[in-house]
Amino acid sequence: MRILNLAFKRRIIYANNCRSLFSKPLIKNFSSSSRTRDAFSPLDTFPRRHNGSSDSDVKKMLDIIGIKNMEELASKTVPANILSKRSLVLEEGLTENELLKTLKNIAAKNKIYKTYIGMGYTDTIVPPVILRNILESPGWYTQYTPYQPEISQGRLESLLNFQTMVTDLTGMDIANSSLLDEGTAAAEAMLIAYSAGKQKQHTFFVDEKCHPQTIACLQTRAECFKIKVIIGNALEYNFDQHGKDLFGVLAQYPATDGTINDYTELANKIHSIGGQMICATDLLALTLLTPPGEWGADIAIGNSQRFGVPLGYGGPHAAFFACKKQHVRRIPGRLVGVSRDVSGNKAYRLSLQTREQHIRREKATSNICTAQALLANMAAMYGVYHGPEGVKNIAKRIHDFTNTLAAEIKSHGYTIKSDLFFDTLNVHIEGGSDKILEKALKVGINFRKVDDFTIGITLDETVTKNDLENLIRVFAKDSSYVPNLVDVKKSNIPNQFLRTSPFMQHQVFNSYHSETEMLRYIYHLQSKDLSLAHSMISLGSCTMKLNATTEMIPVTWPEFSNIHPFAPIDQAEGYKIIIRDLEHDLAEITGFDGISLQPNSGAQGEYAGLRVIGAYHKSRGNEKRDVCLIPDSAHGTNPASAAMSGMSVLNVKCNNGVLDIKDLEEKAKKYKDRLAAFMVTYPSTFGVFEDGVVEACEIIHNYGGQVYMDGANMNAQIGLCKPAEIGADVCHLNLHKTFCIPHGGGGPGVGPIGVKSHLVPFLPGHPIIKTSGDNGIGPVSAAPFGSPNILPISWTYIKLMGSEGLKSATYHALLNANYMARRLSEHYKILYTNKNGMCAHEFIVDVRPFAISADIHAIDIAKRLQDYGFHSPTMSWPVTNTLMIEPTESESKVELDRFCDAMISIREEIREVELGKQPKGDNILTNSPHTIQTLVKPTWDKAYTREQAAFPVKSLRERKFWPTVGRLNDTYGDINLICTCPPMKDYSDLD
Amino acid sequence: MRILNLAFKRRIIYANNCRSLFSKPLIKNFSSSSRTRDAFSPLDTFPRRHNGSSDSDVKKMLDIIGIKNMEELASKTVPANILSKRSLVLEEGLTENELLKTLKNIAAKNKIYKTYIGMGYTDTIVPPVILRNILESPGWYTQYTPYQPEISQGRLESLLNFQTMVTDLTGMDIANSSLLDEGTAAAEAMLIAYSAGKQKQHTFFVDEKCHPQTIACLQTRAECFKIKVIIGNALEYNFDQHGKDLFGVLAQYPATDGTINDYTELANKIHSIGGQMICATDLLALTLLTPPGEWGADIAIGNSQRFGVPLGYGGPHAAFFACKKQHVRRIPGRLVGVSRDVSGNKAYRLSLQTREQHIRREKATSNICTAQALLANMAAMYGVYHGPEGVKNIAKRIHDFTNTLAAEIKSHGYTIKSDLFFDTLNVHIEGGSDKILEKALKVGINFRKVDDFTIGITLDETVTKNDLENLIRVFAKDSSYVPNLVDVKKSNIPNQFLRTSPFMQHQVFNSYHSETEMLRYIYHLQSKDLSLAHSMISLGSCTMKLNATTEMIPVTWPEFSNIHPFAPIDQAEGYKIIIRDLEHDLAEITGFDGISLQPNSGAQGEYAGLRVIGAYHKSRGNEKRDVCLIPDSAHGTNPASAAMSGMSVLNVKCNNGVLDIKDLEEKAKKYKDRLAAFMVTYPSTFGVFEDGVVEACEIIHNYGGQVYMDGANMNAQIGLCKPAEIGADVCHLNLHKTFCIPHGGGGPGVGPIGVKSHLVPFLPGHPIIKTSGDNGIGPVSAAPFGSPNILPISWTYIKLMGSEGLKSATYHALLNANYMARRLSEHYKILYTNKNGMCAHEFIVDVRPFAISADIHAIDIAKRLQDYGFHSPTMSWPVTNTLMIEPTESESKVELDRFCDAMISIREEIREVELGKQPKGDNILTNSPHTIQTLVKPTWDKAYTREQAAFPVKSLRERKFWPTVGRLNDTYGDINLICTCPPMKDYSDLD
Repeated sequence: MRILNLAFKRRIIYANNCRSLFSKPLIKNFSSSSRTRDAFSPLDTFPRRHNGSSDSDVKKMLDIIGIKNMEELASKTVPANILSKRSLVLEEGLTENELLKTLKNIAAKNKIYKTYIGMGYTDTIVPPVILRNILESPGWYTQYTPYQPEISQGRLESLLNFQTMVTDLTGMDIANSSLLDEGTAAAEAMLIAYSAGKQKQHTFFVDEKCHPQTIACLQTRAECFKIKVIIGNALEYNFDQHGKDLFGVLAQYPATDGTINDYTELANKIHSIGGQMICATDLLALTLLTPPGEWGADIAIGNSQRFGVPLGYGGPHAAFFACKKQHVRRIPGRLVGVSRDVSGNKAYRLSLQTREQHIRREKATSNICTAQALLANMAAMYGVYHGPEGVKNIAKRIHDFTNTLAAEIKSHGYTIKSDLFFDTLNVHIEGGSDKILEKALKVGINFRKVDDFTIGITLDETVTKNDLENLIRVFAKDSSYVPNLVDVKKSNIPNQFLRTSPFMQHQVFNSYHSETEMLRYIYHLQSKDLSLAHSMISLGSCTMKLNATTEMIPVTWPEFSNIHPFAPIDQAEGYKIIIRDLEHDLAEITGFDGISLQPNSGAQGEYAGLRVIGAYHKSRGNEKRDVCLIPDSAHGTNPASAAMSGMSVLNVKCNNGVLDIKDLEEKAKKYKDRLAAFMVTYPSTFGVFEDGVVEACEIIHNYGGQVYMDGANMNAQIGLCKPAEIGADVCHLNLHKTFCIPHGGGGPGVGPIGVKSHLVPFLPGHPIIKTSGDNGIGPVSAAPFGSPNILPISWTYIKLMGSEGLKSATYHALLNANYMARRLSEHYKILYTNKNGMCAHEFIVDVRPFAISADIHAIDIAKRLQDYGFHSPTMSWPVTNTLMIEPTESESKVELDRFCDAMISIREEIREVELGKQPKGDNILTNSPHTIQTLVKPTWDKAYTREQAAFPVKSLRERKFWPTVGRLNDTYGDINLICTCPPMKDYSDLD
Repeated sequence: MRILNLAFKRRIIYANNCRSLFSKPLIKNFSSSSRTRDAFSPLDTFPRRHNGSSDSDVKKMLDIIGIKNMEELASKTVPANILSKRSLVLEEGLTENELLKTLKNIAAKNKIYKTYIGMGYTDTIVPPVILRNILESPGWYTQYTPYQPEISQGRLESLLNFQTMVTDLTGMDIANSSLLDEGTAAAEAMLIAYSAGKQKQHTFFVDEKCHPQTIACLQTRAECFKIKVIIGNALEYNFDQHGKDLFGVLAQYPATDGTINDYTELANKIHSIGGQMICATDLLALTLLTPPGEWGADIAIGNSQRFGVPLGYGGPHAAFFACKKQHVRRIPGRLVGVSRDVSGNKAYRLSLQTREQHIRREKATSNICTAQALLANMAAMYGVYHGPEGVKNIAKRIHDFTNTLAAEIKSHGYTIKSDLFFDTLNVHIEGGSDKILEKALKVGINFRKVDDFTIGITLDETVTKNDLENLIRVFAKDSSYVPNLVDVKKSNIPNQFLRTSPFMQHQVFNSYHSETEMLRYIYHLQSKDLSLAHSMISLGSCTMKLNATTEMIPVTWPEFSNIHPFAPIDQAEGYKIIIRDLEHDLAEITGFDGISLQPNSGAQGEYAGLRVIGAYHKSRGNEKRDVCLIPDSAHGTNPASAAMSGMSVLNVKCNNGVLDIKDLEEKAKKYKDRLAAFMVTYPSTFGVFEDGVVEACEIIHNYGGQVYMDGANMNAQIGLCKPAEIGADVCHLNLHKTFCIPHGGGGPGVGPIGVKSHLVPFLPGHPIIKTSGDNGIGPVSAAPFGSPNILPISWTYIKLMGSEGLKSATYHALLNANYMARRLSEHYKILYTNKNGMCAHEFIVDVRPFAISADIHAIDIAKRLQDYGFHSPTMSWPVTNTLMIEPTESESKVELDRFCDAMISIREEIREVELGKQPKGDNILTNSPHTIQTLVKPTWDKAYTREQAAFPVKSLRERKFWPTVGRLNDTYGDINLICTCPPMKDYSDLD
């Protein structure tokens, strides 16, 4: 049988792939992979904690649906031809106690050296109050993206702080609320310059002193746009040779070799030929140096990691993106803005959301649809805690220490390559770099190897006098040398480079400098935000399941958080095990032969997967294969990713929620010579396991195309069926949906891809750490393994659940959705179920009839749900004026019922409008959400009472989450775009 | 000079004292003890994070008081004759980063063995969701005692869960919300039996199979009551020989040797002679065994530690106390009850508070005035998470494993001393215990050494099959022996012992078994409770200062939390360092020569200190010295502690807030032959540094007495003056007030005592681990070092602050109090300041005039402050109808102003009543606090608006904490006493 053969073959290919990453063989972590349940088996197994409902509740729910057991549920939901023939083969689930012990041993294999590698990643001191109360707090990490601003004012304020800090430090007009990493931020900047170019220019110049991973990410991204990337010395290059074809330049400030260069003339030059000046920079350096916005840069990007975000072996961190105002409508990612609510009170929201939610499909230059909110919040809080003086003092100290170190190193006869630096020295090593590198390694120190005769040393805020002495000793002839450090050597940066403009003068950066004040500020913001710690967040397609404490605990272990992404690989043995285990387990779960963990969001996964397909076609001489078939119903990122991969997007019809196989075949046939790929989400974005999926895949394969499966809905498949068995060649997984990485209020995410054996050779590579074979596509993320610091979450989830547990979670997910659909079907029309009347793990509630009967729309129900203490389900996607509900397996029957009761109660409220008891346009739905401030106003002239508004069901009197602002005025915010904190004077009369 | 000489001498005595505890010399932890500030010094020092106000705000505050600088502030506040002549000599403060690294190294010196010692302490699995969201959450650990029930419903509900669980499991009628430890709980029980005795009986019998530390604690406590404690075999003893003098019996069930005995007949016998049957027991065992309440026990006590509270080298844990209803008014400690609020809604509160707040002074048999709330909450949540079936299954498994182990050990030729056990085996070792103990140690296993030929083995829920195999191997001849464990050996406990009654059938124990539900329940309760994460809690005399994250992080490190209190002392090297450092630093801070960290509350410290004084007098043949002079104004615990120490309490007058020295001298003189001690709080409970304190101490010494200083107000002294220099011979410190251990919602606390050299020999001892010389008084706590798991908090605080930092904190504390007093003095009368018009670290606001002018009382202001988002200051103590405000150093000027603004606004609200604009008895104060439910009612007939009630100052619209119930009806609750969760049927119509 094909599948069984493959299973054997896969293991070998997989192992090969791994060997290319890491030299040593796979380590077996568990004493017993086939533990059988007996009297000695542990009691408190994890699946019963992860899945929401007890066995007795499951029985009740099955009864209501009219189904005997979970097996029958699966057989009525999933087409028979895709149900896996064999069970998953994973180790049996560990208990949480066992897991943490096991993982601690693995973590201990990571070696924490004092690391001076730099390259955009430095060690930092995470203020403990931020560590514990944001990064380790479910109140923050389980939040969803703030699409419902009325119950998200806390993180919106914090993200506005981030934007303000970035705007100020870079000297730009506006900044977004973070991007995935510095490398892709540079790529986004390049493409903005590209699309801003009026004359379709195609040449982009990159200064050679940019970080190599940044250059590599740019190159990856440039290829499909046919952009010609030239690398050279920007200060000496003759730009005129390109005439008007140059659309932009990227230079780094300070540069990767530590030097500070004056790019003013360069910027003028670029502007004179109609191009954009892009600056990669370092926020901390900018507290001392003239910001890019003041010397002519149009866009500034970089990594905010050193503002109190752990190294984490490369991520997740919040990259930043700031620009001049002419680019405001082109800014990728999310932008928080100040607007007003319906009562005229100040309120924050995501601005210009139209940019994001309707990504320009086939014309897209970006597919970005997430941010690194949790990390941006941490960085912003670091700014809040230290304030402008604090961060400046940190920068000064680092610079003074670097100066001191330079003098000492020189005194031992070495040459420092430049005298103009902030925190980074390049040292010429006459005898060859390796000698010094080895000497340093022996005393637990990592330097950067720049080339055979140059090493790089980057200092950070953790460096102490003792560290300096240890550093100096490496360069001394006598290893017992005792440096005599009496005073620091003060800055010798010329005035022309020194910053004179103030920054972070806003109240928020000058108020919370004691721990007590900081703690209260964090708690205050948190109190405004609904998260999974309050109630279910049934976002269709987003899988807001439990992020278990045991999964989160390892994230902040120093063994995982304090490693530099480019540390020598033998210092990352612990990570190696996590990465290889996870690759193995994800391969088993999906049926694929190779996994790349590099993409750090779902969209990045899509992009990587399509690029891999492109590389595969190219390797077979099929470069002309460029057509990508995508159903109407696809996530907006699908066509955007395809466009970015140089493909032409062609829509395939859906009829009544079902893919039109005939249309697919016709188009596949018509474009058989150009057919590159077919992108399909499974179960479909309509929440159904479509019968025709195997046939569709066969059609594509018959016409020479590759099948890309969007893994957004993998939560419905695990343990029941596998993308590879269904026919997919590539699939991305959302570890932040299906595998328990928390959404963090809008990022981080991890979007690995799985591929079949023929695509394995093309998985993404990396210029610093080898992650692929020689034929791999370029890196799609700045760090070799994307965001490794959060991989232990998914690893832990899989190890805790085991094969049976994972399958049980899928059962519960299907059960919960079908149970809710059944309950709600008596009150609402449920769109799209399969022939047995079953939905998959999510379902769509049609509210379009109420538009006519009561002038009530999906948004009114969404907002009214806030009054019931709930976050709205996905609104108007994939069908306008509907709600798509995905309960996930982690919600209990009690919670599902609470939500159903709310929806049913809302249906009766709508009826009041239908019956004329409440006027259209001024009723309990259209006026929702109701804030306390509104409800205590002296006069009340509504057709419903204050109590009906506040406590429509009795349980709310005991437990209710309150929105802190009324319904947002979106138009006002977009017209009056303000994306930074109010200036100080606005606080003189706060209202 | 006396002080300098002493300083030298002290060090030697101190070292001697320490050597008696630990054999090795003091380890120096820090490379530099005299780091000077220079260009290399760290930037982010801790004092600026701990102290609330910035330098510029300090300047503003000093200006308003009209003082130049902190030195002048001190000189105007503290009498010149007690100001220390030299600065503190402590190591310079570390940064938080340095501290955590240093402490991690110290922690690593603790060795974590697999420990089967038992004796009331077993390893447990702390559910991670509870660990992270309660023990590690400032929202829980920074709460104050729930004296203000309207803003404490969360922890009150949780403590009620604890009481319900204990009541059910023990089969008793009522349980309190925890006691300090099992040993003192047994002592409390004995004294209740004693005071219940109608005929002044004096004999108490203790079964020999009780834990030795329990017996020792009992004996300590019995001495001063002249109770004759007889230890013997209760099942064979002839009780008739004591006629009617026997007032009670304590027996343990299961016993310390593991056996389960039938005490039914014993209970009947004791009852027949008018005595009380007390049972020390184990909650987990009671899930399987007939509960004490069903076989005749009157009181049941024990430790709830194994319900998910870390071992922590002995504490803190929550002991429990349950009894039959005839003892309800005698229950020591705190009792949570169900009552109603002013609107008739169900609301929780502390019941029968009169018992506690007016401790019966000189007639007291208990001085207990705190609980172990945080740990009781953890244990309750463990019960909630596992539910009745869950805990029963855990018990069953442990029992089955123990049975299995017994069979295996027997098969290797050993004798198990009894066949009737739950989790503990006593094994006879023919060749002597030491051999097996050594063999076990070599493989990382600790057993209990019962005697030279017996070892004890107690299993717990962490034991796995693998652990069992390792255990069996210790008893096998061949150390490579591989046990063949096929199945567990099932229980052979006879039916007569098996529990048949149900338990924990309440909704709360049967609802939250998934992690998501559990997390939400924890968050829901937390959302009802005001804590330091919201706003200042300016409790006079309670010092609610910052509990910094860096201080709290080490508490949950496994190196500190997973050690058994009776583990071989060489496994606790890390703790040794912490304890010795802390003893050293506290000695330096107080000027004393010896420190005992054993007392685990302030009241325990008082008791220990007075007992030490008693032992000192006795050692000099002065047994007749039994009079204790105590000022009127003393904390209620002072006379209670004195009474419990066998002293006669004599009040000393205070005139206008000042100790009447003449009265003191007269009484000292009159009782010169009987004078034992003088207890004095300094600064006084009126918040003033009294001038006469040195004179008072001299008087006492002249008449042969000893001075006991109550350290409740040490926060005003540190770095400025020292109790020992002032003249105190003993002083207790509240580490949970002055040294940053959080209050945890009403415990834990730590109350070490410092003593001068002549008292050092009498510091408390312990029967298992040597803590004192041979003349030490008996143990006052069950564990040798009280609650060591939280000592790293205070250790960290001192190491972070250093000498200068500690002094600066005192300055800030004095400044904040004087600043507030100055601002409020324009609106309220401030009682008691010194001759310069200065208060110490706290001050009293007199609101008595409003009783006449507006029928407004302190409680009305306290409740109205809740509407402003504040916890009330201390109410009506030490002066009725006043408020005592202690801001602490950690509050910022902004927060102080916010509080002052609220108080000033309230003053204006009172004026409205005075002016007749609002009626007496139905105004914005008397109706406070206002809940949202009240404010959204359809009709509103008050003389003020809803908005005035809710948002009296503008800033509340942005940030406000809401009370969840209206003002409590205390009378209703005390009359209708309900101290367990409502039965299931009550939930059918929740309201």
